[in-house]
Amino acid sequence: MLPAVSSPNRTSEALIRNDGPEDRCFGCGHSNPRGLQLTFRPREDGVETVYQADEALAGAPGVLHGGIQATLLDEVLGMAIHVARDHRDEHYVTAEFQLRYRRPVPTRQRLRVLGRCVRVEGRDAFVEGEILSEAGERLTTAEARWRRIPTREGA
Amino acid sequence: MLPAVSSPNRTSEALIRNDGPEDRCFGCGHSNPRGLQLTFRPREDGVETVYQADEALAGAPGVLHGGIQATLLDEVLGMAIHVARDHRDEHYVTAEFQLRYRRPVPTRQRLRVLGRCVRVEGRDAFVEGEILSEAGERLTTAEARWRRIPTREGA
Repeated sequence: MLPAVSSPNRTSEALIRNDGPEDRCFGCGHSNPRGLQLTFRPREDGVETVYQADEALAGAPGVLHGGIQATLLDEVLGMAIHVARDHRDEHYVTAEFQLRYRRPVPTRQRLRVLGRCVRVEGRDAFVEGEILSEAGERLTTAEARWRRIPTREGA
Repeated sequence: MLPAVSSPNRTSEALIRNDGPEDRCFGCGHSNPRGLQLTFRPREDGVETVYQADEALAGAPGVLHGGIQATLLDEVLGMAIHVARDHRDEHYVTAEFQLRYRRPVPTRQRLRVLGRCVRVEGRDAFVEGEILSEAGERLTTAEARWRRIPTREGA
């Protein structure tokens, strides 16, 4: 996930959208025509994205592939850290990622994907997230540990 | 993941390739032009697939997105169960999935992804897998529990 270049003072209504020419991340890069092109909205306790998958991203017919569910969750979790850290120029990467698939996640439905940063300890950020159906049911939940890595300039 | 329709007596050299018109799974369906179109090779202790990702599937530049890594692993784990269960007409779905991202996984490199079924207890199958670099380094590892669900006919 590429961090958004953005102001730390955005309001909770402002969208985060990585749409520069270099923003080619499969999850959030709006310059990647094959990617998911996610846009994020900060919430009081984290971030959310809304995504409706087409059938090309299914595993079984009508069910979003578990790997694409992981992609959606990985994206909101990374962005939740970025927002919690006030959009600093830091690089966090996923270290451990645990998913629990509770119910089938449908394609062709507006899913809400929520992520929040629970705490930061040293170089580790602990996050959790969930995919909700249009009706608000929790379909898949996740927890992860991300780790801050040195930037090229040293961080 | 859609199960391959195949003989339980295939040799260890035979490839498993889901290429019927209904095989549209994002991971393994060869009739999904937007999917990964994975092909599997049974091994003595599980299955493997070889995959070289292009840059459209990257997270950070040159690094395969963690969600696509999850997709690759989910696929070999499901196929490892299918092979371990002698290609029976059973449906297993991912219930819990734990990934550990150890080193960056490069795009534009022939990755090997291995999966094996460790044990089956009742309706649960326990599996583990890994993504290896071309040089054989372990980049990402995973463990999962899959759960057998009733088929439409009852199983």
